Amino acid sequence: MSARRPLPAKVAVLGAGSWGTTFAKVVADAHPDIQVSLWARRAEVAKEINEFHLNSQYLKDIRLPENLAASADLAQVLGGAPLVVLAVPAQSVRAQLKTVKPLLAPGAVVVSLMKGLERGTDARMSQVIREELGLPQDRVAVISGPNLAMEIARREPTASVVACTDLEVAQWIAAVCTAPYFRPYTNTDVVGVEIGGIVKNVIALSVGICDGKHMGDNTKASVITRGLAETTRLALALGGELETMAGLAGLGDLVATCSSPLSRNHTAGRLLGEGLSLDEVNQRMTQTAEGIKSGRAVLDLAAQMGVEMPITEAVVAVLEGHLSVEELAPRLLTRELKSEGEQQQ
Amino acid sequence: MSARRPLPAKVAVLGAGSWGTTFAKVVADAHPDIQVSLWARRAEVAKEINEFHLNSQYLKDIRLPENLAASADLAQVLGGAPLVVLAVPAQSVRAQLKTVKPLLAPGAVVVSLMKGLERGTDARMSQVIREELGLPQDRVAVISGPNLAMEIARREPTASVVACTDLEVAQWIAAVCTAPYFRPYTNTDVVGVEIGGIVKNVIALSVGICDGKHMGDNTKASVITRGLAETTRLALALGGELETMAGLAGLGDLVATCSSPLSRNHTAGRLLGEGLSLDEVNQRMTQTAEGIKSGRAVLDLAAQMGVEMPITEAVVAVLEGHLSVEELAPRLLTRELKSEGEQQQ
Repeated sequence: MSARRPLPAKVAVLGAGSWGTTFAKVVADAHPDIQVSLWARRAEVAKEINEFHLNSQYLKDIRLPENLAASADLAQVLGGAPLVVLAVPAQSVRAQLKTVKPLLAPGAVVVSLMKGLERGTDARMSQVIREELGLPQDRVAVISGPNLAMEIARREPTASVVACTDLEVAQWIAAVCTAPYFRPYTNTDVVGVEIGGIVKNVIALSVGICDGKHMGDNTKASVITRGLAETTRLALALGGELETMAGLAGLGDLVATCSSPLSRNHTAGRLLGEGLSLDEVNQRMTQTAEGIKSGRAVLDLAAQMGVEMPITEAVVAVLEGHLSVEELAPRLLTRELKSEGEQQQ
Repeated sequence: MSARRPLPAKVAVLGAGSWGTTFAKVVADAHPDIQVSLWARRAEVAKEINEFHLNSQYLKDIRLPENLAASADLAQVLGGAPLVVLAVPAQSVRAQLKTVKPLLAPGAVVVSLMKGLERGTDARMSQVIREELGLPQDRVAVISGPNLAMEIARREPTASVVACTDLEVAQWIAAVCTAPYFRPYTNTDVVGVEIGGIVKNVIALSVGICDGKHMGDNTKASVITRGLAETTRLALALGGELETMAGLAGLGDLVATCSSPLSRNHTAGRLLGEGLSLDEVNQRMTQTAEGIKSGRAVLDLAAQMGVEMPITEAVVAVLEGHLSVEELAPRLLTRELKSEGEQQQ
């Protein structure tokens, strides 16, 4: 595929939650001549976007651009779109893709914004997309990085990573979504970028629990450090690269998620740390805290690959009711005295 | 040196600022039978510690243990101490060491808690110690990690790294300072541990400036990510190890410092970002923000080693008056579109 591939006239984005809507806005802001078509599951969300240029449930009073239109009709959104961006919940994407398949434009490239592992199969989102749509790897890409949606919607300067095994495809997608406030870098390590985005949600739950228990920044920094170490071990075992994990989609995304009150996973962890039950936390959250759903799949995948992930293991034990948050906190730091290399690798 | 070396009966700590006093407290808490002798430059500080078990200027109402005594008499503090811990300002340590040398007990091991490069020589603290005291490398160690002093003083769980080229010496020091709330790991990479502790102060200034300019968590996470990348490049060029930079003394310390309102460097950066001049910032700070002093030395060392450090360069330009904080912020993220690997390595 040529790097000189022209920019698409139309881009389809499926999923009108905060990240899907924000990414649609990025593309529309970047190229006023591109028609951005956003699929919303609920007709009333599409209506608000089209009539008032708002998605008030997810993006409050952020005004959406004129060249962004929404629809609840999947065929209308996908028709003639050579670039399709998926931002639907990770656990329901497979079902969704079955309806997408017959409507996909020939040759279309599919990009995942989703961060999660499918429960039951432990599959990454790019794997689910390739399986369900029967696409070769150079037609599937992922985007991930320190990308709190609300900050991007407010045009705060943000960097991100577009990964595709075919670098030219990644460059083409990067050109489509380069806005004055959104700067994508390219990478060919799809596995590393996806694993970084998935596991950070689980680590953010543990840091949130520390916050809920009023633990200090020393402790949280140690948990983040060890969390990235176990994420890196898993990524490397799956064929990902060390540089990716030290970059924006690994370290960057982890730090942003663990620092921000805007992060759903961090917030969910904090509520657990404050003593709420998992049911109570789920009721409080308006959007999915993906780490709660993916934690068990991450742990299963790690076991399959023979990788130790003690923080993930502790978080999953809390989520599954086998460990209290009181017991979790000491477990995050307590190990026998030994050399740092041994404990981290 | 044997790993079975007995614990010392006396430990000397030079420097009664927040970190020196806190570390003295850690050792005293860890071993009630060890006599911890803390040298304070000012007699009134020593008096407060001895009479009231307080160092109110630096540690507010934290009560210090009974087996921690202070003195302004260097000979008294150093006499008979087989372990000497240095926590004096980095820029004055060389002069201090000239008075220490004749008083040092034969065979004593010297540990640096200091984080800075000496201006003019660009020497690391362990280098200054070895030069001035004429010590072999197995008698000099460093301790660094995500160690905000006030949190440790409050007994919040904290991990740290003790580094010495001789692992058994590192293990001996780790045994001396292992308290229920303070857990040191050992490492033989002295260079990496020191570079992590030095450069993070400069990166924390840049993150503080971002905070002062009200930039978001996406931006700050990107600056932290790139900051660790340039720190790692410098450490590797000097013979340090990648694992150290990904560990508690690299990533861990950087994240703690950049997250915490307790960090002096982060605070100094924030004040600069809010529009204060460097003089005004220095007047406001009760203790040194070491990044302000070490920044130029870090940049000189990087130039000497042929290492690019764009964030450090931008921070030093601000400190030296060649760049405004308004110009700094965009420079931290603005690069040409390219692959992440290229920009990071």
